[in-house]
Amino acid sequence: MTTNRIVIIGGVACGPKAAARARRRDPSADITIIERGDLLSYAGCGMPYYIQGQVETMDELMMTPAGALRDEAFFKGVKAINVMSRTLAERIDRERKVVEVVSLETAVRHEVPYDKLVLATGADAAVPPCSGVDLKGIFRLNHPYDAEGIRKAISDGCKEAVIVGAGLIGVEVAEALASQGLRVTMIEMLSTVVPAVLDPELAVHLQRHLESKGVTVLTDTQVICFESDDRGAVREVVTDKGKVTAQLVLVSIGVKPNVKLAKDAGLELGETGGIKVNEYLQTSDPSIYAGGDCVENVHLITGKPVYAPMGSTANKHGRVIGDNITGGNTRFEGILGTVVFKAFEFNVGKVGLSENDCKKHGIPCITVLVPGPDCAHYYPTSKPVIMKMVVHAENGRLLGVQALGRGEVAKRIDVAATAITFGIDARDVSDLDLAYAPPYSTAVDIIQHAANVIDNKLSGLAKSCTPQELKSRLDAGDDFVLLDVRMPGEVEEQPFRENRVVHIPLGKLRERMDDLPRDKDIVVFCKTSMRAWEAQRILEGEGFTRVRFLDGGLAAWPYGTSW
Amino acid sequence: MTTNRIVIIGGVACGPKAAARARRRDPSADITIIERGDLLSYAGCGMPYYIQGQVETMDELMMTPAGALRDEAFFKGVKAINVMSRTLAERIDRERKVVEVVSLETAVRHEVPYDKLVLATGADAAVPPCSGVDLKGIFRLNHPYDAEGIRKAISDGCKEAVIVGAGLIGVEVAEALASQGLRVTMIEMLSTVVPAVLDPELAVHLQRHLESKGVTVLTDTQVICFESDDRGAVREVVTDKGKVTAQLVLVSIGVKPNVKLAKDAGLELGETGGIKVNEYLQTSDPSIYAGGDCVENVHLITGKPVYAPMGSTANKHGRVIGDNITGGNTRFEGILGTVVFKAFEFNVGKVGLSENDCKKHGIPCITVLVPGPDCAHYYPTSKPVIMKMVVHAENGRLLGVQALGRGEVAKRIDVAATAITFGIDARDVSDLDLAYAPPYSTAVDIIQHAANVIDNKLSGLAKSCTPQELKSRLDAGDDFVLLDVRMPGEVEEQPFRENRVVHIPLGKLRERMDDLPRDKDIVVFCKTSMRAWEAQRILEGEGFTRVRFLDGGLAAWPYGTSW
Repeated sequence: MTTNRIVIIGGVACGPKAAARARRRDPSADITIIERGDLLSYAGCGMPYYIQGQVETMDELMMTPAGALRDEAFFKGVKAINVMSRTLAERIDRERKVVEVVSLETAVRHEVPYDKLVLATGADAAVPPCSGVDLKGIFRLNHPYDAEGIRKAISDGCKEAVIVGAGLIGVEVAEALASQGLRVTMIEMLSTVVPAVLDPELAVHLQRHLESKGVTVLTDTQVICFESDDRGAVREVVTDKGKVTAQLVLVSIGVKPNVKLAKDAGLELGETGGIKVNEYLQTSDPSIYAGGDCVENVHLITGKPVYAPMGSTANKHGRVIGDNITGGNTRFEGILGTVVFKAFEFNVGKVGLSENDCKKHGIPCITVLVPGPDCAHYYPTSKPVIMKMVVHAENGRLLGVQALGRGEVAKRIDVAATAITFGIDARDVSDLDLAYAPPYSTAVDIIQHAANVIDNKLSGLAKSCTPQELKSRLDAGDDFVLLDVRMPGEVEEQPFRENRVVHIPLGKLRERMDDLPRDKDIVVFCKTSMRAWEAQRILEGEGFTRVRFLDGGLAAWPYGTSW
Repeated sequence: MTTNRIVIIGGVACGPKAAARARRRDPSADITIIERGDLLSYAGCGMPYYIQGQVETMDELMMTPAGALRDEAFFKGVKAINVMSRTLAERIDRERKVVEVVSLETAVRHEVPYDKLVLATGADAAVPPCSGVDLKGIFRLNHPYDAEGIRKAISDGCKEAVIVGAGLIGVEVAEALASQGLRVTMIEMLSTVVPAVLDPELAVHLQRHLESKGVTVLTDTQVICFESDDRGAVREVVTDKGKVTAQLVLVSIGVKPNVKLAKDAGLELGETGGIKVNEYLQTSDPSIYAGGDCVENVHLITGKPVYAPMGSTANKHGRVIGDNITGGNTRFEGILGTVVFKAFEFNVGKVGLSENDCKKHGIPCITVLVPGPDCAHYYPTSKPVIMKMVVHAENGRLLGVQALGRGEVAKRIDVAATAITFGIDARDVSDLDLAYAPPYSTAVDIIQHAANVIDNKLSGLAKSCTPQELKSRLDAGDDFVLLDVRMPGEVEEQPFRENRVVHIPLGKLRERMDDLPRDKDIVVFCKTSMRAWEAQRILEGEGFTRVRFLDGGLAAWPYGTSW
């Protein structure tokens, strides 16, 4: 048997994982990693926490949990994997099955032959086509050296920072900078923060939280150019709405897959721009595999290609490729675009499709918005969460969950990820035997509560009105009744100042029903919408036909309570 | 149409839920709840936290999240549900469809007619057949008044407490008492704590944690009787191993379903002792439904009846019954015996079958034991967890997960609960698109890491030895090599003192292979078993055939490291 020569281009996440997996399966394979940089296997996702100072040294992001530095000697000694770092792969000759490389140290060129080639070339930060984008003080967050540069800029005394792009990396870095006393302004082209993650009515809550922490958020704002001081350092960010002073700028408007090598070699690219791979992560050349941030994935719900680079996906890709380049037959079915991130005291997460995503794909959906505590409301650590569930309007299939708040979010996202992967009806979430104890959840967990409301909507029992819809009716000056069924104390504490409001506490509704018109639309609200839904049913029981409750109640109402 | 007369016996969890759900579906139904006590809809699971003082007043356990007290007036005014509290349901006349009740206030008897009857009669604490069990100072934790009694005993100055039964309620109360300065002794008849929840090698870790918090744990110990002082209060607990002084005793050896009414009425009981119900939660009389702690459930994996009372299940039952007594057709498929609880700084959880459960049911299983951080190891809040995964040996189906430690546990249990419910192959857990960011998880979450190890075992790549097996070989004085592949600093910090140990750091293994015998069994270990598994593969690559790694490494090793 001849030795299997495996060559892997890219030494950060997918590449080393594929190499290590291949080694464990095939002790005799000849395995080489080619990496253009000098750092291997670093935890790129940890960079915001390094900037924040919660991770003290960059080395921590490069060590195994047992404290070993993952350098060339580590790969050679422990794993018998050759690493060629500071080496650029310039060209793939698919005919002769060689990679032409050049050492960035010595400029020496040579050829590395392969039987199986793995492209794990990652992605680079996208750069806006603005003049001045290369000024001193303007960073991307693509590499540990970028993080070190930002940290140095802070210690050098930068006081004002601009973050271009309010995606999740932007938000993470906003926290990292603001928590160190910098004045931070985020500039987002679209109308809400994290537009790829959250539907607008949830994004507003995140934006408010960022603002409450001193971050200025400019949405619907376009960067035009960057202006420098007389030493060539950035001084001002010029936007279509005005100028913002900054000595430190992070450009985080997304990433682009590194596909040059693949493209030059004639490998097929996908419609998203990433390298196209099949379910075995094989490119259009059966000897060449690709994974991590340079490929596109299949979205498990839409079945369509999607570009969604994630460290977790890169690791899974590495394992699958490691199997398949050593004779295995492992499939990678796809992703759900799951994300979670921390934004100051908020936890924010999404899995599957948002309502916006559904609109884009033409998928008919119904949604619910439910606020609730993350554990028993009487337990001292209980904190609120707002959850939005998105379900196929025709077949009831769970399509997506978004959640945010001070309370626990990741658990609910992961439960939804598991359920969605297996194509589960949202109503089946109601009866999942999830772990219950007061410090961890409520007897009916918020995700099950959301599923119950979906059930009520699908069966026609519950009729609701979204916050967006109510707001546009208020804005339009429509004639309807806003029925507030909270207790007097609650109303005093958080009044909804609007002249359509009629206040009847739920406990008095049965006796004061005659105060309400039967020939007008009635939108009922309370704090969380539980009582409002109860009120809808009470009124319907008495023959009212035009009653709906406000989805999510005041707890999820994003628009302020003065009109 | 005649009015649907619904009568519900039991006003705590399932009963009020069924009533509220029925009301929302059928505004015209006549709904009555009969409750022997004077408290309604209280959160029984919160009682340990009331005892601990984290929940200040009992009222908090009886209020809605919006702060309304769920009393008779609340049910009447808000929900138009009649509540007859302090009323005992004495007999069901199924022929005439009436419940004979007696007021515990006035002793007046009368009959309540029904079209649909719901039994939500709950459970009572089991009591050991020991003399003195009714002495002053001996409590069960069945009712808020019990919790108030315990809290009063503490404020009256009790200093020594005994908890009979180391189940999860026992552990929760141990924390509640010890954290207030009481000397706590737990007495457990079986050989490990929480034997229904954890396999022995995990239970030992929990026991150590309890002991580190000052709790004395006596396993394999049987209570014989309770002795009183001259005022009739408990003074000593007499066991088969000696006496323990106590002024406060909690008996928590489990609960028994309250089935007397059902049994007297000739309704079928199940083999577990709970009321037997079908998937619509209907008893053997189609007009009578039952749910909550008085019924048995179907276990979703074994398909067999199981008695596993839980507040979360009771709520689900209530909703299903509320549907079905108002013309619905909702099924409740069953449970997984999911539990989670807090024990001082440990989080502990289980879902599905343990290895012990599999043995009882004759299900062939393979297991893995993996320690790991609950989030990125470099993130400051990262804490360790130990997870055990149990998988069907023949078809790879995920059967169960147990986990414990200072790190997050409930999320992983809930993911497993979702996966198990839908009969998923453990290997499919590896590719779930779970939410990843450094504050919440590792790029390969511990549950996916466990699934990967299962994959390696099922495919024959990974060969391991359980801690129990290694211990018995050490105890038996077998001749084999224990290969420690940790780094020298780690060995110094936590040496494994055993004369079979050969120390070769993983990085040196390839060059020092000749130091190892090829004709002996080799058990490799490291801290977490990641490197030990790597070593197994390296040695096998060089022709060694008798190598296995220690499941879970030293991090999960429960037996001490001196021999």
